[in-house]
Amino acid sequence: MHLPSQLLCCLLLLTLPYGYVFASEEKTDLELINRLRDEALNHPKAHEHLGVLTDEIGARLTGSAGLKKAVDWSQSQLRHWGLQNVHSESFAPFGLGWSYQHASLRMLSPMPLDLLAIPKAWTPGTRGVQRGRAVIARLSSEEELQKWKGKLSDALVLLDEPLSFKPHLTGDAKRYTGQELEDLQKMELEPGAARRADGQTFQKQQQFQKKLQSFLSAEKVIATLHVSRGEDGTVFVQGGGSYKMGESAQIPALVLASEAYNRLYRLLEKKKPVELEVQVDARFEDEDAQAAVNVIADIPGSDKKDEIVMLGAHLDSWHGATGATDNAAGVAVMMEAVRLLKESGIKPRRTIRLALWGGEEQGLLGSRAYVQQWVAARPDSTDPAEKTLPVFLRKPAGPLQVKPQHAKISAYFNLDNGAGKIRGIYAENNVAVKPVFDAWLAPFADLGATTTTLRKTGSTDHVSFDSVGVPGFQFIQDQMDYMTRTHHSNIDVYDKVQKADLSQAALIVASFVAHAANRNELLPRKPMPKDPPKDTTKDATKDAAKDAIENKTESLK
Amino acid sequence: MHLPSQLLCCLLLLTLPYGYVFASEEKTDLELINRLRDEALNHPKAHEHLGVLTDEIGARLTGSAGLKKAVDWSQSQLRHWGLQNVHSESFAPFGLGWSYQHASLRMLSPMPLDLLAIPKAWTPGTRGVQRGRAVIARLSSEEELQKWKGKLSDALVLLDEPLSFKPHLTGDAKRYTGQELEDLQKMELEPGAARRADGQTFQKQQQFQKKLQSFLSAEKVIATLHVSRGEDGTVFVQGGGSYKMGESAQIPALVLASEAYNRLYRLLEKKKPVELEVQVDARFEDEDAQAAVNVIADIPGSDKKDEIVMLGAHLDSWHGATGATDNAAGVAVMMEAVRLLKESGIKPRRTIRLALWGGEEQGLLGSRAYVQQWVAARPDSTDPAEKTLPVFLRKPAGPLQVKPQHAKISAYFNLDNGAGKIRGIYAENNVAVKPVFDAWLAPFADLGATTTTLRKTGSTDHVSFDSVGVPGFQFIQDQMDYMTRTHHSNIDVYDKVQKADLSQAALIVASFVAHAANRNELLPRKPMPKDPPKDTTKDATKDAAKDAIENKTESLK
Repeated sequence: MHLPSQLLCCLLLLTLPYGYVFASEEKTDLELINRLRDEALNHPKAHEHLGVLTDEIGARLTGSAGLKKAVDWSQSQLRHWGLQNVHSESFAPFGLGWSYQHASLRMLSPMPLDLLAIPKAWTPGTRGVQRGRAVIARLSSEEELQKWKGKLSDALVLLDEPLSFKPHLTGDAKRYTGQELEDLQKMELEPGAARRADGQTFQKQQQFQKKLQSFLSAEKVIATLHVSRGEDGTVFVQGGGSYKMGESAQIPALVLASEAYNRLYRLLEKKKPVELEVQVDARFEDEDAQAAVNVIADIPGSDKKDEIVMLGAHLDSWHGATGATDNAAGVAVMMEAVRLLKESGIKPRRTIRLALWGGEEQGLLGSRAYVQQWVAARPDSTDPAEKTLPVFLRKPAGPLQVKPQHAKISAYFNLDNGAGKIRGIYAENNVAVKPVFDAWLAPFADLGATTTTLRKTGSTDHVSFDSVGVPGFQFIQDQMDYMTRTHHSNIDVYDKVQKADLSQAALIVASFVAHAANRNELLPRKPMPKDPPKDTTKDATKDAAKDAIENKTESLK
Repeated sequence: MHLPSQLLCCLLLLTLPYGYVFASEEKTDLELINRLRDEALNHPKAHEHLGVLTDEIGARLTGSAGLKKAVDWSQSQLRHWGLQNVHSESFAPFGLGWSYQHASLRMLSPMPLDLLAIPKAWTPGTRGVQRGRAVIARLSSEEELQKWKGKLSDALVLLDEPLSFKPHLTGDAKRYTGQELEDLQKMELEPGAARRADGQTFQKQQQFQKKLQSFLSAEKVIATLHVSRGEDGTVFVQGGGSYKMGESAQIPALVLASEAYNRLYRLLEKKKPVELEVQVDARFEDEDAQAAVNVIADIPGSDKKDEIVMLGAHLDSWHGATGATDNAAGVAVMMEAVRLLKESGIKPRRTIRLALWGGEEQGLLGSRAYVQQWVAARPDSTDPAEKTLPVFLRKPAGPLQVKPQHAKISAYFNLDNGAGKIRGIYAENNVAVKPVFDAWLAPFADLGATTTTLRKTGSTDHVSFDSVGVPGFQFIQDQMDYMTRTHHSNIDVYDKVQKADLSQAALIVASFVAHAANRNELLPRKPMPKDPPKDTTKDATKDAAKDAIENKTESLK
């Protein structure tokens, strides 16, 4: 029984001086929540949106025809639900689109064997069927290139160490326990140092990658082979080269299932000659501004219609599967949330704006472009060396210049940590917003959403807003098997998503957005970031470093 | 502290009359164990044997060239170690060999997509590349065949319901806890009724399968498509037709990764036309007595050389991967055990006989044949209907006739429950052998092997001996991810085996075999089985029923 402590709280409340802000002062519209809840849980449709995005549209790599289809479908669907101002906004120039139609890798000798392999994005096809011997070669330094010169003609080169397997004694999928949620509310005052990719390191890597590509091309290497960190048939695969026009990789690169890669590796270590046959049908698509866009759609506000509450998720995905948990699930939930709001008959005071981002996987390109255009921007660097870097690695070239929407956006809410249900929200060090979120979460305790943590979280599109001083938030989601199985893998598919989790998330997002839209004030803000904006760099470079670690030989874009 | 109860035991021991047999009376040769242990743990080679069997030789389907290679290699290796009487014993006629060289399944429309699929064993290839539409059709009754008549020309038919996914909240791999081992020692006096496949049911199924094959063939179906119970890229695949000459399946059958199958299924449910392209290069091999054999090899005994201690594991595997945990691991351990015994310099009193069985996956064919030839047999049925049944479903046609080895085999020790280390042994209801095994296990408590359970276990080759009254035993092994990932799947590969587990198992098996070989008496026996021998039927049919359930539409062989 917690009655005694509750009583104590009430007594304290009565004796505190006026002016203290308590969660209990934040109003929640329980009748609205009743309507949203009925539609969300009893007539859910998020899984239908998910089915279209994954099964029907498929992979949605930035710049590709797949993403273009998703852009078209989502706009049409949003218009059908009665959203206004439905349009796309380009963040071109992006670079080349890319897609693959077929890939096969086979061992011909010492025995016939099909090998599970997926091409890295933005690497070329093989121009028909190619045959060659497999060779293990470390090619990670100039010395090693010299050592292998003249020895790799018509070879398929295994560049990675084999994967070391360990028994999977714990579950792939995981939901937060009560204790873990409690722990999540404690700030990490001395967080572990994030591995940072800096501009200099990036440039060195990029220069070596260029040399490596020239070397592989001069040596007439057929393809490079890489090992996936996945097991049991799960293949994690991202990009293998630049999407910039004129900078593309010249040699096909495939990621193999670790079971297949390791077997080749062991046969070669035993000096068994291995002959392989490879075919990759892949194509670069001309730069197409239609597939480097964000989708924007509004539910117009009333008395405060020039103020905006935003919600969003990224529409682009990697290419190894159908990007179900990364991030068709987020898109399906956000689309469902606006559908619920329309169905609820709400006439919001502020304008509710849905944004479906492109280019998230390449460094939050879509959301950064939106922010830069409408919210706040820094001047472009005039240093040519800086200009060769990805935007998220460039040093700030001047102070932040705020634009009209900076003062008008109450908050941006994001969903991109897999497809698990919502357990709470990261308040991003914003102490003033915590009691508001606590109040807004209270009606959803029975659905498992209870926790506001002051912790920050990175690696997705709310960072673009938070880094310029506009409140941007990502919800806490059950991890499920996001990091162990689906994130950037060949099994990021519809089946890995729990329908009930989508419905729960859509309900909570809809309620948060509605309450933000109808609140008297904008949500409280943190102080403006000082220049240089450390947080932007930190979050994005942490991401870039993580990706670089996961894809050891992959060039950063 | 357990001291009081231990003291009590000692006092009881001193007061009991002569003639009671206690574990403490069983001698263990600790100096021999010291030598075995040094070689097993400090100079292990089991993983090398495993590497040859899996990476180099590959799949070893009964009757195939792969099994033939394994037969040849194992004999050569055993001779090299100085084993005597190394030879193979045929259990022909078996039927046709089968292997596949390549399989690919692709979606052409609504979009290009590679689909992970593996042909069922003993189903034909496609004769080049075939294209056709995908159709969902239930074809499990005469009525359904009638309904679909004339509607499946040039179709690839999805016969199964899609797989229902659940989050994997617990680990794939598992080792026994102390509590679980304790529980395992309690007999199940009312075990759950095993689902039994009986002759009648089998014949009905077989008759329908024949009709189905004729139907599919008459309808010019291109291939049947089936769903794997695996997830994350793991595909479980066994046989899809008879290996008997003249009874082969006529239509290619492929098992798809559930992620791929489910997506096709959902697209079809949404009425999206799906066009597929399939190619399976598979071939039936002529009956070859050289690939339907057991390998036998001896370490000859001395003063009791006409008595035999046997150890064994099955050399055959399924075809989806390299049969690492089922059962190259068992073979590698048993081969390592005899290598350890040779290295130890032991001159056993009894002859130690290694048997590497073929045909285990088709119903313990190899070990049954050995037992029938040398140990004990029942007369063949003269009923023609009985003769159409697999041997393990035939009713006994007369009393058991014992043969010379029946009185001479002290015990047969088997290893075939995956690649996990040994935690103890199933005593198969043989109360008299329990104290012996307890004593033999005692020196291995530090390695985790502690438990003798009186429980029976089935589904592998020791059953062939136990069912005719000769002691046959299977060790208790840690399950690891045998049932969840590797058992009859496409990822039953070298990497899934823990080297240290193999070494531990080889040491314990070697010690058990040495102690059985040097003991004054043969191991105590249970009473002879009465006719009809319920246990034979039970264990084998349980297996057959389990396989039938796992491979819903697969015809029993």
